[in-house]
Amino acid sequence: MSEQREITVQLIHEIGVQIGRKDTAKLQDLIDDLHVADIAEILEELSTTDAQFLYQFIAEEKSAEILVELDDDLREDLLADLTAKEIAEEVIDNLETDDAADVIGELSEEKQEEVLSLIEDKDHANDISDLLTYPEDTAGGLMAKELIKVNENWNTLQCLREMRKQAEHVKQVHTIYVVDNDDVLLGSMSLSGLLLTETNTPIKEIIKTEIISVKATEDDKDVANIMNKYDLIVLPVVDDMNRLIGRITIDDVMDVAKEEAEKDYQLASGISEDVESSDTIWELTRARLPWLLIGLLGGLLGAIVIDKFNIFEINYQLAFFIPLIAAMGGNVGVQSAAIVVQGLANDSLKMDNISQKLLKELGVGLLNGIICSLIILAAAFALGYGDLSLAVSISLLAVIVFAALFGTFVPLTLKKYKIDPALATGPFITTVNDVLGLFIYFLIGQAIL
Amino acid sequence: MSEQREITVQLIHEIGVQIGRKDTAKLQDLIDDLHVADIAEILEELSTTDAQFLYQFIAEEKSAEILVELDDDLREDLLADLTAKEIAEEVIDNLETDDAADVIGELSEEKQEEVLSLIEDKDHANDISDLLTYPEDTAGGLMAKELIKVNENWNTLQCLREMRKQAEHVKQVHTIYVVDNDDVLLGSMSLSGLLLTETNTPIKEIIKTEIISVKATEDDKDVANIMNKYDLIVLPVVDDMNRLIGRITIDDVMDVAKEEAEKDYQLASGISEDVESSDTIWELTRARLPWLLIGLLGGLLGAIVIDKFNIFEINYQLAFFIPLIAAMGGNVGVQSAAIVVQGLANDSLKMDNISQKLLKELGVGLLNGIICSLIILAAAFALGYGDLSLAVSISLLAVIVFAALFGTFVPLTLKKYKIDPALATGPFITTVNDVLGLFIYFLIGQAIL
Repeated sequence: MSEQREITVQLIHEIGVQIGRKDTAKLQDLIDDLHVADIAEILEELSTTDAQFLYQFIAEEKSAEILVELDDDLREDLLADLTAKEIAEEVIDNLETDDAADVIGELSEEKQEEVLSLIEDKDHANDISDLLTYPEDTAGGLMAKELIKVNENWNTLQCLREMRKQAEHVKQVHTIYVVDNDDVLLGSMSLSGLLLTETNTPIKEIIKTEIISVKATEDDKDVANIMNKYDLIVLPVVDDMNRLIGRITIDDVMDVAKEEAEKDYQLASGISEDVESSDTIWELTRARLPWLLIGLLGGLLGAIVIDKFNIFEINYQLAFFIPLIAAMGGNVGVQSAAIVVQGLANDSLKMDNISQKLLKELGVGLLNGIICSLIILAAAFALGYGDLSLAVSISLLAVIVFAALFGTFVPLTLKKYKIDPALATGPFITTVNDVLGLFIYFLIGQAIL
Repeated sequence: MSEQREITVQLIHEIGVQIGRKDTAKLQDLIDDLHVADIAEILEELSTTDAQFLYQFIAEEKSAEILVELDDDLREDLLADLTAKEIAEEVIDNLETDDAADVIGELSEEKQEEVLSLIEDKDHANDISDLLTYPEDTAGGLMAKELIKVNENWNTLQCLREMRKQAEHVKQVHTIYVVDNDDVLLGSMSLSGLLLTETNTPIKEIIKTEIISVKATEDDKDVANIMNKYDLIVLPVVDDMNRLIGRITIDDVMDVAKEEAEKDYQLASGISEDVESSDTIWELTRARLPWLLIGLLGGLLGAIVIDKFNIFEINYQLAFFIPLIAAMGGNVGVQSAAIVVQGLANDSLKMDNISQKLLKELGVGLLNGIICSLIILAAAFALGYGDLSLAVSISLLAVIVFAALFGTFVPLTLKKYKIDPALATGPFITTVNDVLGLFIYFLIGQAIL
């Protein structure tokens, strides 16, 4: 039994050394029985030149699948080394249609046509070229053409015979789809159901007609939500006439759901592009700079607000609690927005009732606000800030309630106008709450002191 | 073909009205052909009493599966209405072992034993009671006992016969496992492979020995990472002697990966418990208060720092840029920590080389810091702040570099001591960076002005 091997820093170092020595025998030895996903991981850790060198020595049946597992950048580099003929015969021929379309989709239009024309199996080429017409972030962009379908009028024996024919092109059979003469999806059968039935049973008798399907135009995040909600491992895709045109397996959408949650997290942390700690310093800087610039602008606005309010003529001690007010406004806003964004992402939050959500958030804000402002009232009083304590306490309550409402309102509004609500959680809410919080604070301070 | 029906606010309202009228016929009509996941969604939207009323009218074969789909709280409420005999006969009997163990696991120990003793199928009861011994967050806690296994010494005909026997208990067959006489896992066969082979082929000839498995003690997040990395739909679980004891399907870990990303996101947003926007005001407040209290403490410390530094004797205008310095320190720290936390969660970040990570983060911090401080130098100078501009600019650079290093260092250190690194992204980093940022700012201000 071969098991996944831990990709250690030692192994990667060893491979690097052998690449330096151009010791191809040793290299073969080192990577020979590794899983494609592990080899991909190793390639990612090497320099591009080293990766290109190593990639040449990988057996054809593995090399195509490795390409699929790689990050876009490295895949592009490796593909650039190959001619259209090599791509068609060594890569595309060994891939299922969905992966093939993903690889071809990254080539220039010119090269795409060249590769497609060089694929020997014309059906395969047609399927791939069909898949290329769907946008990447739709069900059509996720689906593969490989599936087993049988006609409702057959019996189990005919099914088995036909399936043997179709199964040549299908690596793994999850479900058998049943269609009518026009290819309209009627239902499904499980392979085990077929195995356990007499061979001349009509399909109509064992078909499961309760089947969930999606249109090819469905958004990929909705596809992920549907598969997750209904615990589906494979989901059939139909066209507008309900004709079966493909299927999506769960491993393809697992990434969608996870990437979505990760993207929301990155946005909330002020990271504007999808980056990893292994990216270059420049990539990491570029992903982080936009939020910092917005924060910078907010900080400048804050400076102007403090300057213009002339707080030092009211009570210079007002300045002491500037960090508190600014931080709390930001914190509360981020919390409120995060709850809305996750609710929207999971489809558990319905958009029908914005005013009800705001009312509830008002409750949460008031409760949090009252607790926090009572604590700060006592603390500031104990520290000897006298009247100022009252001003800080009232301001804090006002800022928390405002920030909670604002943090809820903004992502809901963005969603309404079809803008990604997660954009609101990072820079925007924090910065606006910082500045407006100061404004509220000084207004109240002015009134009380 | 029945399709998933959109659960609209109207439908939920209509159901609420019919529950009020106790019109059971209408209720049956409304929910009759809904998928269990949809009925679960509706139950979640109703009040507990309404949900309990509606639950009685759901057909037995659906009601068990609905329980599995529900949130813990509501499931507990509905189970409380059932006797141990009803749970054993109506619920557990209709569930696969993993779901059955999840349901039973939530009962009191006393009731657990009672229910287990009342299950008629003793094998089923033994399997469940075995699963209950594994911690929830391990491979053992995720796995189910239902699987198809065949002996390496059989031929395909014997396989088919044996599978027909085993398949009674297995709803969906994904993979057929091959074991030796001691139940040690040797490899797998696909169902389609079996269908396409002559009936007297020895199993040994068609077995795929490259199989990835996990030990029952493996952490659930690692299980999710393995299934995701190797694109597995089902993963066999073995004991310490490599004997096959269960299998995990991807729909069970899809939630793990997603929940992990969501939990990290919630922690980063300052939410300490898993909450949803549909939770009560009190639950939402309780989840959010801890961060706010830490923020409050940070704000108070900030006030003391400003007070003690006597900045008004240095240059009262120093106060203008307090929000800027505090916000930027917090922002940079959150960014750095988020990248580390995601890298650790995805297993893409190796722990071997902390100093190298810190060096890179120093580069990112310097680059971001220099850009930001040049901008602020120009802006503050243009706004007429003279010498102060230089103090702010230098401080900002120092704060950004410090925050970047600190934001990287803390989660790596937490991970090293086996504490969840995501804890660092929310309250801790922001607050510490806020306060230390002010400290650095005033020190530099003191030196320059």
